[in-house]
Amino acid sequence: MKCEKKISSPTIKRLPVYYRSLSALMQLGVQRISSRDLSNIMGITSSQVRQDFSDFGSNGLQGYGYEVESLHREIHNLLGLHILQNMIIIGSGSFGQALAKHTDFEKKGFKIVGIFDINAQLIGKKIREIEIRHLDTLGQFVQNNRVDIAAITVPEAYANEIASLVISLGIKGIWNFAPIELKVPNGIIIENIHLIDSLMILGYKLIENDKEINS
Amino acid sequence: MKCEKKISSPTIKRLPVYYRSLSALMQLGVQRISSRDLSNIMGITSSQVRQDFSDFGSNGLQGYGYEVESLHREIHNLLGLHILQNMIIIGSGSFGQALAKHTDFEKKGFKIVGIFDINAQLIGKKIREIEIRHLDTLGQFVQNNRVDIAAITVPEAYANEIASLVISLGIKGIWNFAPIELKVPNGIIIENIHLIDSLMILGYKLIENDKEINS
Repeated sequence: MKCEKKISSPTIKRLPVYYRSLSALMQLGVQRISSRDLSNIMGITSSQVRQDFSDFGSNGLQGYGYEVESLHREIHNLLGLHILQNMIIIGSGSFGQALAKHTDFEKKGFKIVGIFDINAQLIGKKIREIEIRHLDTLGQFVQNNRVDIAAITVPEAYANEIASLVISLGIKGIWNFAPIELKVPNGIIIENIHLIDSLMILGYKLIENDKEINS
Repeated sequence: MKCEKKISSPTIKRLPVYYRSLSALMQLGVQRISSRDLSNIMGITSSQVRQDFSDFGSNGLQGYGYEVESLHREIHNLLGLHILQNMIIIGSGSFGQALAKHTDFEKKGFKIVGIFDINAQLIGKKIREIEIRHLDTLGQFVQNNRVDIAAITVPEAYANEIASLVISLGIKGIWNFAPIELKVPNGIIIENIHLIDSLMILGYKLIENDKEINS
């Protein structure tokens, strides 16, 4: 896929959804799909689908649609899923452990190479084949192993300190699970999983929904 | 707060971030804040902050800013956090258990009242004081207990089936952790936590970042 144009942030957010939808279609044996059918699956308009695909250089054929497998391959490459990225998890509480047990990330090219904590009772234990190591050994670990992403699953009060530590060690990608906005310098990429935000939005929409039904 | 105007979807997404930022400021003892300082904390423009607050009827004073505590209280009420919502978790794998252990949700008004699974080895175990029950007993449970939200943490292949089940039992809010777009009727509110999407976006941005540095 030739892609000189910079892809917009909302389109980037849709890329994984396209990717998952196309994966599911492939599993169902679907070989081609119209922008309208794909838009129904995605819950967006079909003109948005056509615009997105045109932005990254894929044009469907009028009355024929898109080849599912080739489009899937293009988005796979566009997302860089053919490039293996190494990830560590800092904080081996229940969420850190749940992430470490999750093998789906590896299937998408994200390999968990280390888990770190300061809790003496956890150090040395293994989750799958990955040993929980003491945070004090992180610097040495990063010297000896390429680490692209640090997932931060420590309590909120320590999250900024841990972010500064991993950045000082040269790690450029942070997957933050702490419910705060981390302060990081330019050139560091952050993605947040803010569970409580998502739950608050759900609660808000439910209450608004109730009001509409009762009004 | 008088709020007749419907709040836009992007503003709704920012509400929890305002709420968390204002909570943090209160903990630091900050009593008032300018839209500029708040915009720096949030990583958005100060005109956006002023527009958002004006949308839900809170106007700061020129040269004075916003009262942190009263703004916090307004957003608390706007989000409906004073209304207790009952949540069940379906799927007591590692993510379901991690959610169940998370006491922060309760502090924000979301009470976990039940956990359900089909794995005989887990039925009867407790996470905190909450017993893991067999999914077969869900219908009866929902008859006897108000349930507002079902968190779905089952494997992808079962997620749509579980969503249909909880909807048939009258539950209107779904917090979906399965990496698919659930098909639900109108009037059902869904919020998704798509971990793999977030990770794919992080990976994509890291690769783009690398390209920029190396170009």
